[in-house]
Amino acid sequence: MMKRWKITIEYDGTDYYGWQKQPDVSTIQTAIENAIKKFCGQDIDVKAAGRTDAGVHAHGQVAHFDFDWGNREIDAFNLAKAINAHLHPAPIAVVHAEEIHADFNARFDALNKLYRYRIVTRRAMPLMEPRVVWHFKHHLDIDAMREGAKHLIGHHDFSSFRDAQCQAKTPMRTLDRVGITTKPYDPFGGEEIWIELEGPNFIHHQCRNIVGTLVDVGRGKTSPDDIATILKAKDRTKAGMTAPAKGLSLFRIDY
Amino acid sequence: MMKRWKITIEYDGTDYYGWQKQPDVSTIQTAIENAIKKFCGQDIDVKAAGRTDAGVHAHGQVAHFDFDWGNREIDAFNLAKAINAHLHPAPIAVVHAEEIHADFNARFDALNKLYRYRIVTRRAMPLMEPRVVWHFKHHLDIDAMREGAKHLIGHHDFSSFRDAQCQAKTPMRTLDRVGITTKPYDPFGGEEIWIELEGPNFIHHQCRNIVGTLVDVGRGKTSPDDIATILKAKDRTKAGMTAPAKGLSLFRIDY
Repeated sequence: MMKRWKITIEYDGTDYYGWQKQPDVSTIQTAIENAIKKFCGQDIDVKAAGRTDAGVHAHGQVAHFDFDWGNREIDAFNLAKAINAHLHPAPIAVVHAEEIHADFNARFDALNKLYRYRIVTRRAMPLMEPRVVWHFKHHLDIDAMREGAKHLIGHHDFSSFRDAQCQAKTPMRTLDRVGITTKPYDPFGGEEIWIELEGPNFIHHQCRNIVGTLVDVGRGKTSPDDIATILKAKDRTKAGMTAPAKGLSLFRIDY
Repeated sequence: MMKRWKITIEYDGTDYYGWQKQPDVSTIQTAIENAIKKFCGQDIDVKAAGRTDAGVHAHGQVAHFDFDWGNREIDAFNLAKAINAHLHPAPIAVVHAEEIHADFNARFDALNKLYRYRIVTRRAMPLMEPRVVWHFKHHLDIDAMREGAKHLIGHHDFSSFRDAQCQAKTPMRTLDRVGITTKPYDPFGGEEIWIELEGPNFIHHQCRNIVGTLVDVGRGKTSPDDIATILKAKDRTKAGMTAPAKGLSLFRIDY
């Protein structure tokens, strides 16, 4: 009997060309579809809530797929186990699976997305998590970054933070929260900074362009109030650099 | 002029045969001494506070060495920078350096050591930190582990938790603290557990043997009060397995 499954997926995206299936390169979608094929022999189309870019990670990517195993039955626990067994040793894991109603759509039913960006600021390389944090060698002024981030909250035209390749119909997006927290990374002044961005939907590179611009504020290159000017300009060239993919994770999606 | 330097070192020990210099294999000590030689041309003996085992990490290993660069001067900041430049891309970094009095000894002057052991309990592999946590597939009862750990606090004969290869003169050690904390690792019941062990000094494999035994308590194989019996037995075969090296880090040393 045909059933629709909702799966939550964690991955270290370092060595992948993003979520979406493409010829000749490794992608997360390809890895998962291949793993499913290995245990059931079927070509299954796995549809994700959002396409993460090359090098971007996920703690809570969500996807759905339909699967009919004829007379055989499988429960959520064993489905996840079977997929994970065939994903191993790839750094991709199904951390949760559940059967869901046939109308569920991972992309269109998502109400809220939380992205987390990790930065380590100190001179020496962050050795323990070289693949999942952005190493920035200089101290960042967190209060200034928080002040600047306030200007981005709300419903705005985010053209200044939109990648040229973005295929969304509109640059209008609602950003509900930018949470910036910091904790000591070592006893010598090194810090780990988390920038969490939350909203119903994001345009291409929006998170990474916001992070790159807030880092300019943190290092004093841009003032907090400049963020308002940059936003109003609707011009990508006014904002800061695109922060590296490695620091970003699609952390959680709410339905 | 001859100066003594104290350095604090962080490393991912996964691919190393421990701290101590040995012929034909990669060790942390060798890597650091080679890096020093590369920038100053001298063979320098770097002495650490404690010899970590193969695969064990450090956030705060401490070492000292003497260095005379003749007429040339170097300050702590540039010394660390020079060593790190030559360590790169090895996952080893000097995170702090300071000039210290000529009598300082990293090993004998250490007053307190803090080891941290990380365990992730969930079915799916912990993908983001595969090198620095022990993946345990089953839930652990933290309260029982805390209860069991209480029996270990104080000055005891730790023979039941001592490796057969241990060269210490005595199995008597003082354990001042075993702190066990847990936090959610994913939204589906996965947990990350930190077991912190603190004391002036440890015998070989003491931390890993304690962790392995506490995990037996957490899974219900051993009762909390059995820990007292195991300790009194002074017999290594009565305690649990040696927990894998990968979860352990020499976190901090106090002087």
